[in-house]
Amino acid sequence: MGVVVKLASARDPGASLAPLLALVEEDMAHVNRIILDRARSNVELIPELAKHLIQSGGKRLRPMLTVAAAKLCGYAGDAHVRLAASVEFMHTATLLHDDVVDESDLRRGRTTARLLWGNEASVLVGDFLLGQAFKMMVDVGSLGALRILSDAAAIIAEGEVMQLITAKNTETTEDDYLAVIDAKTAALFAAAAEVGAVIAGRSKSEAAGLRSYGRNLGLAFQLVDDALDYSGEQSTLGKSVGDDFREGKITLPVVLCYRRGNSSERAFWKRTLQDGKIEEDDLDQAMTLMAQHHALSDTLERARHYGAIARDALAIFPECEAKAALLQAIEFSVERPF
Amino acid sequence: MGVVVKLASARDPGASLAPLLALVEEDMAHVNRIILDRARSNVELIPELAKHLIQSGGKRLRPMLTVAAAKLCGYAGDAHVRLAASVEFMHTATLLHDDVVDESDLRRGRTTARLLWGNEASVLVGDFLLGQAFKMMVDVGSLGALRILSDAAAIIAEGEVMQLITAKNTETTEDDYLAVIDAKTAALFAAAAEVGAVIAGRSKSEAAGLRSYGRNLGLAFQLVDDALDYSGEQSTLGKSVGDDFREGKITLPVVLCYRRGNSSERAFWKRTLQDGKIEEDDLDQAMTLMAQHHALSDTLERARHYGAIARDALAIFPECEAKAALLQAIEFSVERPF
Repeated sequence: MGVVVKLASARDPGASLAPLLALVEEDMAHVNRIILDRARSNVELIPELAKHLIQSGGKRLRPMLTVAAAKLCGYAGDAHVRLAASVEFMHTATLLHDDVVDESDLRRGRTTARLLWGNEASVLVGDFLLGQAFKMMVDVGSLGALRILSDAAAIIAEGEVMQLITAKNTETTEDDYLAVIDAKTAALFAAAAEVGAVIAGRSKSEAAGLRSYGRNLGLAFQLVDDALDYSGEQSTLGKSVGDDFREGKITLPVVLCYRRGNSSERAFWKRTLQDGKIEEDDLDQAMTLMAQHHALSDTLERARHYGAIARDALAIFPECEAKAALLQAIEFSVERPF
Repeated sequence: MGVVVKLASARDPGASLAPLLALVEEDMAHVNRIILDRARSNVELIPELAKHLIQSGGKRLRPMLTVAAAKLCGYAGDAHVRLAASVEFMHTATLLHDDVVDESDLRRGRTTARLLWGNEASVLVGDFLLGQAFKMMVDVGSLGALRILSDAAAIIAEGEVMQLITAKNTETTEDDYLAVIDAKTAALFAAAAEVGAVIAGRSKSEAAGLRSYGRNLGLAFQLVDDALDYSGEQSTLGKSVGDDFREGKITLPVVLCYRRGNSSERAFWKRTLQDGKIEEDDLDQAMTLMAQHHALSDTLERARHYGAIARDALAIFPECEAKAALLQAIEFSVERPF
């Protein structure tokens, strides 16, 4: 193996998701019941495939944001749990379609649905979950929340198409790349947090604050994900180290490395990612180049930058348990080892 | 070639889409402008692919139903054209995903988007169009219409999954098959017609009447489509005769033929459709068996049955231009040669 940067070593041991998890625990149990209930169908394949996804143990960070944002806004009803379930369904639908597009074999350490049930079923069950997500939102009946979440659905898909196009292009700039993850990842984080304020009937500035929090947390989260793909340990990561590399994905570590490298290094990135000609020691070589150019540590620096913006976005809210939990979630996201 | 039943010969020359086309012409021009406008994106691939679909000259029967239903209900606003555009986007998204699932090469006589731009782009642009459809519906702001169309979205996807499962099963019963097309085709026809009454603020019984009209028209339309796949002429059909056969699709003509056949005929259907072992003269043989068992003419009889229900569903509406046009559309659908 080449040089492996152990990102875990940089972790602040005080940063933890525990306060957020404690804050949302009861409501998330409700969210999980709704999710299982709404994944039901007389067409057996649907609950079967949905169960596989639901039990695959994702962090459920997005629905947690909706629940926590509603709590921060003093919301007392039960629409937040239904919107949170919608958000998770939207996310799950995206994952299903993503795995088909990326031809992924592993997701969160488990065989992907597309390998178990086929690409066809993954596309269609994704469509079903998206339909159920919209049904749930409509049941809640908030046109404001509907607008935010349907905007997000269109933006996410736009971001996925953008990524498809830039996927193999090593000339991608940092700005190009940010536009992709802003759409494909940050948009749902932003919407998930914002709807919490909207159903609580809070002011535009508070909704905008939570939106900004969500968006920047999402950007930070994605950048850390990108760095982990070249440094995490497979057992904790739930996917193989080097997946992005093997799939020819251009992520920020690659963008930085490519631009900072010399012409023979650029030829290496073009051969491996653009032309997909990957040889045995190429992943090691990629990791060595990343260490040499501080590509991973600088990606994490960028993530901390967005984390700082997310932190400031919450400044207008008075101190409380929910705010403290949301702030710790930022620290956790930028320092997490998985 | 074997026996080709010329369905066109059975056509009532008086049945025409012309009255419906005339009724909706002005509004459909508006719908088409909205469609082009909402297919815009800074991500070039999206409008490019969307344009390919939009220009491929589908009948636009579904959005026409929304417009005509609104007219039948005396609706005077402009929400119906926006809902009609949403309906067409939902349909287009389904077609994109369908072609990926079925691995189709031709759609309405043109190379499918998935062959031109790849399966990945088709999946993601489908998602984008679905997102845009929901955005447009939310903009209209009718929770009633949103409920109907989001229900339809989930039901359509459920129907597609059902079809995926039954696709190669020659034991499929007529009831099983009807459940599939009820979900995958008739649900959107039903929703498209129903929302016209809902935005016009008409009574539940009128909304239910239009829903029933749409549903049964959709069933009839799909059954005629199934028959045409074994009898139409490629030039007018816009797809190859025998596509369903080659893809192993179990449609009503097959269901009837299989159940009416002897054991060696059943072995033929199992070999060709279930096992996918198709030899040179098999399509001719399939068409011969269909003629022998009156499978196509009886499929058309079934279509006429649903057409009759659709006709009665409109009986509660007073005679008017819109009603006459909608009634003629039934005749056209069950007698159309393409």
